[in-house]
Amino acid sequence: MELAEQLAGQQKSISVAEFFEKNKHLLGFDSPTRGIITTIKEAVDNSLDACEEAEVLPDIFVGVKKVDKDVYRIIVEDNGPGIVPKQVPFVFGKLLYGSRFHQIKQSRGQQGIGISAAVLYAQLTTGVPAVVISRTSYKNKAHRFEIMIRTEANEPEVLKDEEIEWDRMHGTRIEIEFKTTLAAKKRLLDYLMYTSVVNPHARIKADIDGEVYNFERVNEETIVPPKAILPHPHGLELGQLKRIAAASDINLKDFLINSFSRVGDKNAEEIIGGSGLKESRKAKTLTNEELKKLLESMQNVEVPPPPASQCLSPIGEDMIIRGIDKEFQLDFVRARTRKSKVFSGHPFIVEAAIGYGGKLESEGTATILRFANRVPLLYQQGACAITNSIAGINWKAYNISQQGLPTGPVLILVHVASTNVPFTSESKDAVASIPEIEKEIVLALQDLGRDLKMFLGRRDRNKQFEERARAVCSILPDIAMKVSEIVKKPVPDISPLEGQIMKKVVAKKGVRDGFVEIMLSNYTNTAVSLTIYNMSPEDGKDASPKPDFVDNIGDEYNKLWKVIIEPDNMWSAKYKGTNGGTLDIRGVEEKKLVVIDLDN
Amino acid sequence: MELAEQLAGQQKSISVAEFFEKNKHLLGFDSPTRGIITTIKEAVDNSLDACEEAEVLPDIFVGVKKVDKDVYRIIVEDNGPGIVPKQVPFVFGKLLYGSRFHQIKQSRGQQGIGISAAVLYAQLTTGVPAVVISRTSYKNKAHRFEIMIRTEANEPEVLKDEEIEWDRMHGTRIEIEFKTTLAAKKRLLDYLMYTSVVNPHARIKADIDGEVYNFERVNEETIVPPKAILPHPHGLELGQLKRIAAASDINLKDFLINSFSRVGDKNAEEIIGGSGLKESRKAKTLTNEELKKLLESMQNVEVPPPPASQCLSPIGEDMIIRGIDKEFQLDFVRARTRKSKVFSGHPFIVEAAIGYGGKLESEGTATILRFANRVPLLYQQGACAITNSIAGINWKAYNISQQGLPTGPVLILVHVASTNVPFTSESKDAVASIPEIEKEIVLALQDLGRDLKMFLGRRDRNKQFEERARAVCSILPDIAMKVSEIVKKPVPDISPLEGQIMKKVVAKKGVRDGFVEIMLSNYTNTAVSLTIYNMSPEDGKDASPKPDFVDNIGDEYNKLWKVIIEPDNMWSAKYKGTNGGTLDIRGVEEKKLVVIDLDN
Repeated sequence: MELAEQLAGQQKSISVAEFFEKNKHLLGFDSPTRGIITTIKEAVDNSLDACEEAEVLPDIFVGVKKVDKDVYRIIVEDNGPGIVPKQVPFVFGKLLYGSRFHQIKQSRGQQGIGISAAVLYAQLTTGVPAVVISRTSYKNKAHRFEIMIRTEANEPEVLKDEEIEWDRMHGTRIEIEFKTTLAAKKRLLDYLMYTSVVNPHARIKADIDGEVYNFERVNEETIVPPKAILPHPHGLELGQLKRIAAASDINLKDFLINSFSRVGDKNAEEIIGGSGLKESRKAKTLTNEELKKLLESMQNVEVPPPPASQCLSPIGEDMIIRGIDKEFQLDFVRARTRKSKVFSGHPFIVEAAIGYGGKLESEGTATILRFANRVPLLYQQGACAITNSIAGINWKAYNISQQGLPTGPVLILVHVASTNVPFTSESKDAVASIPEIEKEIVLALQDLGRDLKMFLGRRDRNKQFEERARAVCSILPDIAMKVSEIVKKPVPDISPLEGQIMKKVVAKKGVRDGFVEIMLSNYTNTAVSLTIYNMSPEDGKDASPKPDFVDNIGDEYNKLWKVIIEPDNMWSAKYKGTNGGTLDIRGVEEKKLVVIDLDN
Repeated sequence: MELAEQLAGQQKSISVAEFFEKNKHLLGFDSPTRGIITTIKEAVDNSLDACEEAEVLPDIFVGVKKVDKDVYRIIVEDNGPGIVPKQVPFVFGKLLYGSRFHQIKQSRGQQGIGISAAVLYAQLTTGVPAVVISRTSYKNKAHRFEIMIRTEANEPEVLKDEEIEWDRMHGTRIEIEFKTTLAAKKRLLDYLMYTSVVNPHARIKADIDGEVYNFERVNEETIVPPKAILPHPHGLELGQLKRIAAASDINLKDFLINSFSRVGDKNAEEIIGGSGLKESRKAKTLTNEELKKLLESMQNVEVPPPPASQCLSPIGEDMIIRGIDKEFQLDFVRARTRKSKVFSGHPFIVEAAIGYGGKLESEGTATILRFANRVPLLYQQGACAITNSIAGINWKAYNISQQGLPTGPVLILVHVASTNVPFTSESKDAVASIPEIEKEIVLALQDLGRDLKMFLGRRDRNKQFEERARAVCSILPDIAMKVSEIVKKPVPDISPLEGQIMKKVVAKKGVRDGFVEIMLSNYTNTAVSLTIYNMSPEDGKDASPKPDFVDNIGDEYNKLWKVIIEPDNMWSAKYKGTNGGTLDIRGVEEKKLVVIDLDN
């Protein structure tokens, strides 16, 4: 037998499940430790996507329960719309099956691989089937399935399908069991926290082997779910155009208007004109050569960019700041949501934030939070376009030290949202290097860098000023004492002087010539809005200006003025009396206030 | 209608061709520029694999021909065993189809994706079908196919299948056309050169848009093709064991011996003992729980490592050195082939080489050549375990400067050969971080580093010595002249002294008292094997020692002695005569030789 014939006998088809079983590291199942995080991530992604589509506020439970040495049961449950019983086996038991692959809109899951890969990995390591419970409405009972995957065929095998009672009205619960460890618990908690940061509308409760963690929602509004759009003429390749054309039975002009995003009457005519084809031709009759001409013309004619606001769902500057603030409590945080842009016809939006100080480590590399379509990216930081863009910026220009990546108490968040995030592998750990995306990341961060530089400059100037003032004030008492010795006068009160030097509000009270006088000077560089309480036996009915409010408390009268004093201005009040009582000033930090009783 | 029902309507199966069409960057088709290299790489991989299986010396032609603005025709042709006609459409027109996926042995292609992905990408960008010509023997005619891929089904579509005349006796030729540029020409040539380095038995001829490049073979022996082995009990997961067991109809002991690599009678009994199962049980009747016990016992019992020498095909130290030398001509090059090791049951071998000097750039980062299963890795250097292992070594310990990676005129080659190379993505650009593999890389390079350090030390000592000697010798003539003035004698010949200082071979010839004397002193630190030619009118019949050969040339006699002189030893010859003629010494570099005629 010829060698070619012998070899032919070995040629065969490989099921996609077999392929990913052998190459499980491509999907993020390279180690048991990592598998647990990948599984939870895939399940939570699906839950958040489903809740978004159903416009319900996500309520997600994540459980990790030890059932044996090295064997854990992972549970993820949501209050989403549920999955109809006949689809359940395919969604969880067949790789490359799903609803989002063919739609052009932002979603966390895109491939229809993730959760079924987790089921595959579980059965590979423990042989235990996955349990799925799903209920689509209060009118139907819940279904409970036990599912495995026939690897050689990439088809689901249903071991059990029964109706059960379930306390959720609607939702889905998956339980799978696999060999793993809890060595990556810290990273798992980070994942949940970061997920909460970029999904401020979600409530996530986690029970990790008995310890409970709650990530509360900070926003009670549901996200407006992104809507699928038609393909954009500029992002098309010949093969795709061919397929779309083959499925269409209308004339060329209607075909262009109906099949593509942002193509109107005028554009359609221009495209047809450029292609040299007749408007009356049916799209499906076009030859390869004619389609090539049509495509060339489609790409030459100017068409508005795809309608990103429909199909994308950025987090928004305010929500990013609230999310970060909830977890990190920083001295400075700013966010930017850039305008939508396009790469190869796919719309995308870059959002970024920079934070400084607070609870961040003052030494070492900056904290970098990477996100794609609201999902935190935890692995392969070094291979990610986000990291490379950050490292490519000259941070020293913004007064941030840098060793490749910026260093110091800095937090950098970048979120890439797109109808088609270009990941470097199926495990969706890193964004591939696409010039258009990298440019947007750099622009957003440079913009934020300038804000940070201003903040640091102001803080440094304040600090410098304060240090100088402190130095002067520390020798003032000595000078005062020396001078008083020389001129043989009592040592003067230098507090007001200090107030002046230290940029404080100075309040003085004294009794002179049968009048109580209250004087306030604002030496800070911002206007202050103060409430002045003066408690004394005098009722102050003759006071000028009149108190805004007088309260009788026992024998005394509490007189209250509300005033606004501009920087370097002063304010005073006067009333008949010989006591003056106590003075209490509110509306300015204590460290910025000097209160002097001229009579004591 | 409930939302779940609406959503169900959108759920559908995704063909693997659709998946990879959308995610083409995963396969290395992220840009047209890169696509050309990926295509050629996939086709050449297949050609080399096929030739290896057929045990023929590969003769490969690579052509790139411009056919239109931005459109190139890629041709790869080999003299392999060919493919039987009924398999051709599947091999080139269906993703995940091949002969090597299910076999445990080293091969370049493993996935059955690469070349069909190239066909897919070509039809996506130009709509032109792939042309495949294949012939399996002189007895059959060649077949010429035109093939496309039906993306939605991942099935081939044969547009044409005809018998043609072809001048090759056997082999395969693929031609595909796609939109690309020649911007990466330099990298393409690098790829071909590196491929030639690690496949010294292959001849590759390339015609890149009219320019011809030849990469000749340096080894005329075919590679012994690696043989597939059975799975090793230590590298097994439960799911795999289950499948293997289900297909077996024999008792447990025979099952273990026949289905796994390195399990003999004794091991099999030990495994069965440890599992608590009965030897007579049929493997296919075992329950999930019983299989778990069996697997645990299989992994606890000590079994020899898999037979790597059968299934792996390392290049070998000598071939690596010859390959490198052919292309780089270095001052120093050493290679190491480590012993085979195992990760997760997969055998692997690490080979490495270090080169220094020669044509390498003296500044900048070291030249790093990464290979996996004899295939050069060109992209994603930063994400590769090979690079990380290199960066993790303290090169300063070997007198090599380092900034992350080593710097200076250094070349580092690492080859990882395995039955299952763990790549970070389908595009096979980078080796994933596996501790067992990284350890072997580090050990190989540390070992070579020590050799390099010795070389550099010796070179530095030589250099230092030479500088000092040169300094002394440069003032010797002055000293000699001064001394001769003082003692009023003629200036002496200082050449022998120089020879002594400079560590050279000094040869002297003179006529004294009616005898011709020839004296050689070896002041170098190695033995020298010399041929001494003395041409003079004397026939030297009385010479002592006798010449090894005397030749009569006209009036003169050429006397020849072959001698070996140890370091610091001397040799002399004497014969009657008054002339002495000329002295010519061979067998030592000119710069290490001083010849002095005592009579002139």
